[in-house]
Amino acid sequence: MEILSGVFEDLTTGAPITLFIRNRDVDTRPYEILRRLFRPGHGDYTYFKKYGHFDFRGGGRYSARETAARVAAGVVAGKMLEPLGVKVVAYTLELGGIRAGCIDLDLVEKSPFYCPDPVSSQRMEEAVSNTRKEGDSLGGIAEIRVTGCPAGLGEPAFDKLDADLAKAVMSVGTVKGVEIGAGFEAARLKGSENNDPITPSGFGSNWAGGILGGISNGDEILLRAAMKPIPSISQEQDTVDREGHPSKMNFTGRQDIASIPRIIPVLEAMVKIVLADHYLRSKTIP
Amino acid sequence: MEILSGVFEDLTTGAPITLFIRNRDVDTRPYEILRRLFRPGHGDYTYFKKYGHFDFRGGGRYSARETAARVAAGVVAGKMLEPLGVKVVAYTLELGGIRAGCIDLDLVEKSPFYCPDPVSSQRMEEAVSNTRKEGDSLGGIAEIRVTGCPAGLGEPAFDKLDADLAKAVMSVGTVKGVEIGAGFEAARLKGSENNDPITPSGFGSNWAGGILGGISNGDEILLRAAMKPIPSISQEQDTVDREGHPSKMNFTGRQDIASIPRIIPVLEAMVKIVLADHYLRSKTIP
Amino acid sequence: MEILSGVFEDLTTGAPITLFIRNRDVDTRPYEILRRLFRPGHGDYTYFKKYGHFDFRGGGRYSARETAARVAAGVVAGKMLEPLGVKVVAYTLELGGIRAGCIDLDLVEKSPFYCPDPVSSQRMEEAVSNTRKEGDSLGGIAEIRVTGCPAGLGEPAFDKLDADLAKAVMSVGTVKGVEIGAGFEAARLKGSENNDPITPSGFGSNWAGGILGGISNGDEILLRAAMKPIPSISQEQDTVDREGHPSKMNFTGRQDIASIPRIIPVLEAMVKIVLADHYLRSKTIP
Amino acid sequence: MEILSGVFEDLTTGAPITLFIRNRDVDTRPYEILRRLFRPGHGDYTYFKKYGHFDFRGGGRYSARETAARVAAGVVAGKMLEPLGVKVVAYTLELGGIRAGCIDLDLVEKSPFYCPDPVSSQRMEEAVSNTRKEGDSLGGIAEIRVTGCPAGLGEPAFDKLDADLAKAVMSVGTVKGVEIGAGFEAARLKGSENNDPITPSGFGSNWAGGILGGISNGDEILLRAAMKPIPSISQEQDTVDREGHPSKMNFTGRQDIASIPRIIPVLEAMVKIVLADHYLRSKTIP
Repeated sequence: MEILSGVFEDLTTGAPITLFIRNRDVDTRPYEILRRLFRPGHGDYTYFKKYGHFDFRGGGRYSARETAARVAAGVVAGKMLEPLGVKVVAYTLELGGIRAGCIDLDLVEKSPFYCPDPVSSQRMEEAVSNTRKEGDSLGGIAEIRVTGCPAGLGEPAFDKLDADLAKAVMSVGTVKGVEIGAGFEAARLKGSENNDPITPSGFGSNWAGGILGGISNGDEILLRAAMKPIPSISQEQDTVDREGHPSKMNFTGRQDIASIPRIIPVLEAMVKIVLADHYLRSKTIP
Repeated sequence: MEILSGVFEDLTTGAPITLFIRNRDVDTRPYEILRRLFRPGHGDYTYFKKYGHFDFRGGGRYSARETAARVAAGVVAGKMLEPLGVKVVAYTLELGGIRAGCIDLDLVEKSPFYCPDPVSSQRMEEAVSNTRKEGDSLGGIAEIRVTGCPAGLGEPAFDKLDADLAKAVMSVGTVKGVEIGAGFEAARLKGSENNDPITPSGFGSNWAGGILGGISNGDEILLRAAMKPIPSISQEQDTVDREGHPSKMNFTGRQDIASIPRIIPVLEAMVKIVLADHYLRSKTIP
Repeated sequence: MEILSGVFEDLTTGAPITLFIRNRDVDTRPYEILRRLFRPGHGDYTYFKKYGHFDFRGGGRYSARETAARVAAGVVAGKMLEPLGVKVVAYTLELGGIRAGCIDLDLVEKSPFYCPDPVSSQRMEEAVSNTRKEGDSLGGIAEIRVTGCPAGLGEPAFDKLDADLAKAVMSVGTVKGVEIGAGFEAARLKGSENNDPITPSGFGSNWAGGILGGISNGDEILLRAAMKPIPSISQEQDTVDREGHPSKMNFTGRQDIASIPRIIPVLEAMVKIVLADHYLRSKTIP
Repeated sequence: MEILSGVFEDLTTGAPITLFIRNRDVDTRPYEILRRLFRPGHGDYTYFKKYGHFDFRGGGRYSARETAARVAAGVVAGKMLEPLGVKVVAYTLELGGIRAGCIDLDLVEKSPFYCPDPVSSQRMEEAVSNTRKEGDSLGGIAEIRVTGCPAGLGEPAFDKLDADLAKAVMSVGTVKGVEIGAGFEAARLKGSENNDPITPSGFGSNWAGGILGGISNGDEILLRAAMKPIPSISQEQDTVDREGHPSKMNFTGRQDIASIPRIIPVLEAMVKIVLADHYLRSKTIP
């Protein structure tokens, strides 16, 4: 990676920070088939419909390679949040239907799946291994926690903090669902359960996930994202060609079995970017 | 409602369309207590933390009254979508834990809860009635379906259609979770299950919810939103005053038991606004 | 004028401030002719070409009535600048070819033409009176001075302070030219003359007009705007109808002889709006 | 120059087009003095005041090197305008007080100063040569003409075409004044002179410079920009150091005598960028 602009003698200058990552490990041959056929579950079809013409090499602009830029930007955002004491940590709550039974944040970095429960992590490893043999792929759920976020981040109506977080997280290619705090579970709670009591020492519970009225309340911000199984699988699938004729496809590019663990730093980055953006917009937080 | 600008002799002029709704049924007295105390589950606390000073009358800027503007804007957006054949319908999938057992879109408008299943609608009515007696409130889940949406809406990376829909829906005060297509269920599917096969007559399934790579694929767009129970309840709750001293609060403003059914048209409106916006941004769809 | 939002108990709330001015003195009959004919020098022709349909009542959206909104917004912007000690004053440098021979800012408010030279002000009055008899109109030049502006306002490359000021001033309907500091005269100076020496007590001259590299330098900001003569005149003019057939037109709506003096507060407002905007964007000026 | 993104097999893809120009001819040593002293007439002083810290190498972000990016973007914009038949040509109207006596557009490219009058071009050459000997610099005036622009470009009130052109042109470092059509001369015309009559075959004159009510009228768009003399001169100048102490400075970096002729393609580029932007915003022009 090269820093093209925005930094001089170890300090930012106010100019845009350009981080430049050349993809040097390129082999576009496996993707030549995309000139003709659409991979199910990928953006090939919609890009063709929208643009008529698109760069399919490496899986196109919607390739997960694009998340490298997000992670890089997240590092810059993190530098802004650090002095505020804001910490963002993401981990795997569920993979292939296997759910972490306990959450020990100290164990996250030790698990190859960023799973906070060592027993579940082991079972995830087996599930991934079996799924690889089947030529199939797995989905999962990540949880992201933000500690140390001051109250007051978020803008009313148009750029609420939870709305911006939802957009940022949903914009990651593999994500199909986002929830804040109690999330979908809130639909089954009563008001008397779901309301977090306010006490002199803080909130008595955190079903809100740290955001009220679209603005951070100073409590831990908690969100979850659901990731679909990676669409590239080693099984023959039904598709059509650019003229609409039926076809079979067995695509082998570079593929993982699950977006987890690689998605975890991406989700952390997206949350940091949103928080840093709202911090810059805030005049009341020094 | 009054149209202040943007329309002349029954046609738009290109000027901003200003729809003006005066709130003529105002009684701010019940809200005077907000000068001192924060209602749990509302934005009172965060607005005070952010601004130090805020207009609490009617429950403040984060009051659900604000959604009237969203519905009004949605009507304008709908006028743009109509000639394209785009139809947006929202309905109640779940209320207080009671789930619609079947989806008959023709019955939606006949249910006081916009519930597409008459049996469930009846049970919802009972649940709401019982909850009112308890002085409590209920959450729910809405589902939104878009038919007739052409392929090609959505912008890569920064304004993906699913990301913008997630932001729009999450920006509605009561919403705590959003999912597209299979949503959180996708986390438990395998790639071979979740990938929608492409056939000459369309997609063989719709786990994607009509969006691939952030761009509409021409299939039905399907999303769900989870609503928390309304935080205003008729029970005494713990809170603090502006100086942080503990207090008890029993707030009685104007309150519903559940945001359903009123939220249903709001969600429809938000989806229409996003689609109309992306339609205007599109150069390839005439 | 009515304040619809954004202010509560004499303080802003962070919500958009909506200032609402109903035009109660309306007579649209003289404008009915615009349904058929285009006034030379007005936007009638271009609005018709762009939109096919436009609201011509009162002279359309491009009527100078629109500047009332600019002046109102300028008052709000001024409230932000006041505590910083920023003062903006505009005056008439030239009207109908008559130029102010001296600049006494104390006299500006005393002249019906906001002219800082009482002798010239008297001659302007005569010129306007004569021109009215001829059924014609006059142009002029305004000068705007900003004192007390701190160094550091303006953003590199894309939103330079001088560029934003030029846009804001040029966006006023009647303006055809904008210059900063030495302006067009700078084209005839040598570098050794035009460069403002920097001394411990400030700049030795101010050909730059208070802006260097797109950023305020702490010196007085100085700009000038050229206004065309008002296009509505009481003389018969050549035009065409909507079908392109030649026609004669003698339009009598509500018209002034010169945009001066009315434009002076508008130009002050536009400059205040730009400065307040850049002040809000600035993180280094407290 | 390298194209990093946005083009695939000779066609744009809808992704951002990144044009990458590495500055390979770098010698930062002459600029080391900027660590301590501010050059009069440059942005050194204001960048220091705004940021406290800035990258002064090559003259900083406000160096005229930055215009290479503008010219590159202008080429892309031009590709959009070409099929519409829009042509933009800029030339030198005046340099060091010497004005072109006639405008023969065919001669522009033949003059080393882009001057459309060969006699004046010769005199400009002498003036530049003499000024170089004096160690001084010269300003000038450029004129830009747009032919073939359809009526209907420009957005009411906030992004008028003339306002956007003024901003774009004023954002070029050396520009101190912008005028459209009659410009400052309009201030001395009467309405009966300045109004362009509308006839079946077009406008009878073009004092408006092709824009009415902020929207193009289909006639030639005409604007002029005044450029200050280049601030870098080979004479000793008064300045201060970062602590405010008085100092003398004799800066020798890479310098021209006048921004003309180099600025001419930059101004063409800025006008093309604005026109292409408004073309993309337009729905009525195919």
